[in-house]
Formats: sequence, structure tokens, C-alpha cells
Amino acid sequence: MSTVNPPSRPQQIRTFLEQNKLRAWLAWRPDELVMLTGYLPAWGVSVLIYFANAEPLLFIPLLEPKDHLPQGVRVRTYPWGDIKCADPYSILLAAVADELKKSGIEPHEVGMNLSSARSTMPINSAENPPEDFASLFLQLASGGNAQSRAGFAALYLRKTSKEVDCIRLVNKVANIGLRAFFDNLQPGVSEAEVAAAVESVIHRQIGHDGIFYSRGWAMVQSGPNSAEGGQFNRSTGRRLQNGDLVLIELATCVNGYWSDLTRTRAVGALPSDAAELLALVTNAQRAAVEGVGPAVTAALVDSLARNKIAAQGFDKYFTHHTGHHVGFRYHDPGFLIFPNEPSKLEPGMIVTIEPGAYIPGRYGARIEDNVLVTEDGHEVLSHVSGDRQ
Amino acid sequence: MSTVNPPSRPQQIRTFLEQNKLRAWLAWRPDELVMLTGYLPAWGVSVLIYFANAEPLLFIPLLEPKDHLPQGVRVRTYPWGDIKCADPYSILLAAVADELKKSGIEPHEVGMNLSSARSTMPINSAENPPEDFASLFLQLASGGNAQSRAGFAALYLRKTSKEVDCIRLVNKVANIGLRAFFDNLQPGVSEAEVAAAVESVIHRQIGHDGIFYSRGWAMVQSGPNSAEGGQFNRSTGRRLQNGDLVLIELATCVNGYWSDLTRTRAVGALPSDAAELLALVTNAQRAAVEGVGPAVTAALVDSLARNKIAAQGFDKYFTHHTGHHVGFRYHDPGFLIFPNEPSKLEPGMIVTIEPGAYIPGRYGARIEDNVLVTEDGHEVLSHVSGDRQ
Repeated sequence: MSTVNPPSRPQQIRTFLEQNKLRAWLAWRPDELVMLTGYLPAWGVSVLIYFANAEPLLFIPLLEPKDHLPQGVRVRTYPWGDIKCADPYSILLAAVADELKKSGIEPHEVGMNLSSARSTMPINSAENPPEDFASLFLQLASGGNAQSRAGFAALYLRKTSKEVDCIRLVNKVANIGLRAFFDNLQPGVSEAEVAAAVESVIHRQIGHDGIFYSRGWAMVQSGPNSAEGGQFNRSTGRRLQNGDLVLIELATCVNGYWSDLTRTRAVGALPSDAAELLALVTNAQRAAVEGVGPAVTAALVDSLARNKIAAQGFDKYFTHHTGHHVGFRYHDPGFLIFPNEPSKLEPGMIVTIEPGAYIPGRYGARIEDNVLVTEDGHEVLSHVSGDRQ
Repeated sequence: MSTVNPPSRPQQIRTFLEQNKLRAWLAWRPDELVMLTGYLPAWGVSVLIYFANAEPLLFIPLLEPKDHLPQGVRVRTYPWGDIKCADPYSILLAAVADELKKSGIEPHEVGMNLSSARSTMPINSAENPPEDFASLFLQLASGGNAQSRAGFAALYLRKTSKEVDCIRLVNKVANIGLRAFFDNLQPGVSEAEVAAAVESVIHRQIGHDGIFYSRGWAMVQSGPNSAEGGQFNRSTGRRLQNGDLVLIELATCVNGYWSDLTRTRAVGALPSDAAELLALVTNAQRAAVEGVGPAVTAALVDSLARNKIAAQGFDKYFTHHTGHHVGFRYHDPGFLIFPNEPSKLEPGMIVTIEPGAYIPGRYGARIEDNVLVTEDGHEVLSHVSGDRQ
């Protein structure tokens, strides 16, 4: 097991606040709460004050479960609406304002992201958080600007060893899902039935290994549908046939941490051209994974995959990036593994490596792993026991 | 099968636009697209111009699936990002601006909701829509104000017959899920395993009955965990035991339409006090359902359930509303079925009826159906074939 030694999470956050002359950050988006404290909310309406010079203070609604609250954080409850309290948010707002005032912190010294754009879902993931409530806080947090928000996004890039362990656990669960994918590749089974089986085994992991939340989003595309795998991912009612390529795109969230994996596999014997495409994509993906390491540019990693695919004249069918950051979200912010991208990989970064090629109207293939950059190379976090060597 | 005769959807929208002196509404939130046109986006970045005096115009990203586009709507594609186009949103913005200009429509004549608060997810539901792009449109749509947004939210209230049919279909699928719930109530099975089984059979319905998207969020709470069912819903690794009450909260989305159901059921023989609580809640729920009809106040329906529970001295354990609107979202906007709420039910409205009682530290129960208000009474949309009479 490899180790990474980026600065501790509190140290990274303090440096960010100092560089942006902020004395506090107000966070409420589920991915921000996980990144800042390891806490995944149930309801999506918790607010954290992350002070530059004091222990973080988390306000949770009275209805929130109390059994997975974060360590090293002060916790207060605020009322919930409905029968007993008509306006819980004004009480919450007043409590946050009071805390900032007691610390002598002015609004221009507080940063915040108001929008839930590209955030993750809380545990009750059937519903978006009501971020209208977040706009109330703008009067307390006017210190955000493009520079500070970019600096905040950069905090997602370098995962600490503890966070890497959480992301190892997601990948372990995702791999249980991928084994169910392999096991269900039988003629006559529908794409949706395969996806349902994968999501089901992921969900069943709750209660094991300290897992209190585990959910997968599996999207399975077979035969000609796999040719659309570079455009969109979804599962239809199409039933698998012998000779199909079948692509699974699998997002998994465990306790608030994410993995993003793809496998492509055959049903029965493949026609030779489809088998060649799958071999090409597999080899391109391995080449790019092998190239991942500290101080390597994203452009170089991209080219390792793209050049192999181009050598067969298939680069016009490889229509997307080779990878992106992952871990606090299905797609973390940060630079892409992309042509001409000069950014360099650093220890603690976790990126997807996911080249693909999609022949219109025929079939497509993509292989995707999640790869940790270590001090001296890389570690593939997504070991899949059913992978063929 | 009952019928409802509210004004047609286009007529309701035209009336709304006229009353608010708007010549167009810009929509992008998944629930708004479904309500306005029946279209559920895959990616969450489609934009609809709903004109007061012209056919609606829908802009979809090039990557969007084309096989479930809505009827009666003009459709245009705009480029996608990544390899081929660095900034698709500026192209989209210019195209929308051009259309509004061609129609001579000024920004103050266009309304829009910018925030994704409480919206639903697109088909790729592992990720929130990037609504940062929506703020670009504020320069084109300054006609929104509190009154017009409230008027827009009121459009969710009266479902047309066609929409009711879509919501019937969701309930049919949800009921397949609830049968799996009943079938899995065995000692030794974990809450998460029951929930996974329910979600799985719901997911497997894709490809049947015109269903292109079907997803459930099942939250199962058993034994003492059911006592928390009035605070939050989730599934843990706890294993069912004989004598448990088991509560399932089930959100289901089919093709963009939603149902919201709850059942509480025993594992084996219940202790008499738990059996009495379940009977009390069941009777209270039936009484409220029976009271649903046109011109009935929400307060009256609420009281039918709450008074029955209060008669046993348990009203302090019934801590939430009796119901809410449902259909375009897990929780549609609109008045609650709540004490002292004077709003009246109208034909075409679909509300949940979901009284519950939760004895702290011991157990809880809730029963929830989705009930359509008809011209002459009501129709329960959520027939559950495993229900005991």
C-alpha cells in the first residue's frame, strides 16, 4: 500500500484562508462538508463555519442523525420546520451571525459557494438540497470572489492519507459491483437488469466496514448502444446477445466519497473487429495508467493513451478527455487529463484514466480506473478481481 | 378510473404568462422541463424557451439521447464541451438571445428560476446539474419576481389527465417495489438488503410499458430505528427480528414523474402495543384519505388523521404534516396538508396522505398513499396489491 504526504487537511485549509485573507469559510454543499470535515449530511441543510483560528463549528438540523458526526468539530443543532417551528432558517442565520460577530469577523472576511452546481447529494439523495436557504448567508459572507473560489476548488486536488483510505473503501465496494456486472453478462438479460444487480450489491454493503451510506449509479450499454457510450450513459431494456460488447459506467458513493469506474466486456465470443477495438482501448488505458506519476504533465498522460488509439486511426472515435480528478465528487474540480494540458500531477491526486473509442452505429469500448499519484509513481485504487490479465 | 378536467397544460401556462405580463419563461431545471413539456433531460443542461405566443423551443446538448424528445416542441442542439468545443454555453446563450431578439422579447418580459433548489435530478442522477451555466441567462431573463415565481410554482398543482396517467405509471412501478418489500421481510435480512431489493425491481422496469428511466430511493427502518422515521429516513445494516415494525419510505421516479409512498409492516407477530400503534396509524390514514375531495380544506383532511391519533393521546408523536403535493417532484411545491391550512383541494391535485406516530426509543409507523382529487371525490393512485385489508 503506497503512502502520500501532502499537507494535512487543516493545514491546506489554513493556507488557503491565509492566502485569500479570509478568516472563515461557510460551507453547506455536501461535497464541501465531506472535504472539510469528513461529514456527509443526511438532509443537505447543515452549515459549517470553518474558522482560520478556531475549531470548526457545524450547525445541523434537529432531525439529523447523530451517529456519524465528524471528529474535531463542534456541533450545534437548530430547529426543524413543520409542526414546531415555522422558520428554522432565520434561527440558523442568526446563530451563524452571532458566532461570526463574537469572533469579530466581518462579511468581507468570509467566503462561501452559494450554488449547488456539481455538488453531490446528501444521504437522502432523492431530492436536491434547498440551497435557496444558502442565499440568506450572502449578507454574512461577501468575501468570495473568483480567486478565492478557485483556491477553494484547488483544495480538492491533494487527498490526505486518511482520505485516500476512504476512497480505497469506495473502490472496494465498487469492485463488488463490477463482479456482479461480470456475473450477469448472459444473453437475454436486459441492460437495466444488469445495472440493477450491480447497484443492489453496492447498496447491500451498508453495515459492513463502517459503511453507513453506499449507493451506486450503474449505466449499462450493450451491442450498438455501446457506440453511444462516448456521448451519454444510461441503461435501456435492450437484452444482451452473444457477440455484444457491454460497457458499464459506474459511479459509487460510500460515506460521501466517490469512485468512477468503467469496464467493457464481451458476451460470448466477439467478432474479431470488436475484439480488436477492446484490446486497443485496454492497451491504451494501461499505457496511460503506467505513465501516471509525480511531476508528469496531464498532456503527457493523455498522449500515452491517445497516441496508441491514433496509431490505429481511431483517434476520431476517442472524443473525450482521458481523465479527471475524483474522490469528493463523481467528478472533482481541477484540470483534465487532456491534450496540451500543462498541469502536473502531484502526490495525493487521484485521477480517472478512461480512454475509449466508439464506432458510430456499431459498438464502443472504454476502460476506466481510479489512480492515486504517490511520491514515487502511482497506485491503481480500483483493483477489479474479475479483470482478465 | 377517474377523470380530471383542469385546463390543458398549455392553457395553464399561457394564463400564468399573461397574468404576470411575461412573454416567455426560460426553463432548465429537470422538474420544470417535465412539467412544461414532459421531457426529462439526460444531462441536466437543456434550456427551454416557453413562448406565450409560439411553439416552445428546446435547446439540448449534442450529446443528449434523441429517442425520448417531447412532442409539440421545436428542438435544437448546441455543441458539447471537451475535445471539440471549449465553451458550449456561450454558443447556447447567444442562440437563446437570438431567438428572443427575433421575437422582439425584452429581458423584463422573460421569467426564470436560477437555482436548482429542490429540483429533481436529470437521468444521469449521480451528479447535480451545473446550474452555474443558468446564471448566464440572467441577462436575458430579468422578469422574474416573487409573484411570478409563486405563480410558476402554482402550475405544479393541477395535473392534467395525461400527467395523471404518467403518475399512475410511477405508482404502478412503486407498487412492484413495495411487493419486494413485503417479500423480503424475514428475520436476519438487513434494512439495506431490503432496500436494495426494492430499488432493484424498480430499476428492472426500464424497457417495459414505455419506461426509459426508473429509479427508486428506498429507506428502510426497523425495530427501534423505526422510531426515528419521523425525523429522518435511511437504511442501516441492522438485521430484522421477529416482532419488529419495519417502515419503508420509497421515492420513485419513472420517466421524470414521481411518487412518494410509505408502508409499515410487521416481521412475525408484533407485541400488542406495537400492533395497536400500527392499527391506529392505519385507521388515521384511511380516515384522511376518505376525506380527500374537491373544495375540502387541507386543514380538514389533516384533522381527520390528527384527531384519530390525538384521541389515543399520541398526537405528540405525530410530529409532521399529513401530506404535500407530489408528481413532478418527490415533494411538489404548494400548500401542505397541515393544521389550520385554509387552502382547498381542487380536481387534478395529487397529494400524499401520510400520518405517522413515532414513540421515542421504541418504534414508529407511517402509512402514505398518493391520492388524486377528482371532480367528485378522490382516487388512490397507489394501489398496493400486498396491502392487508
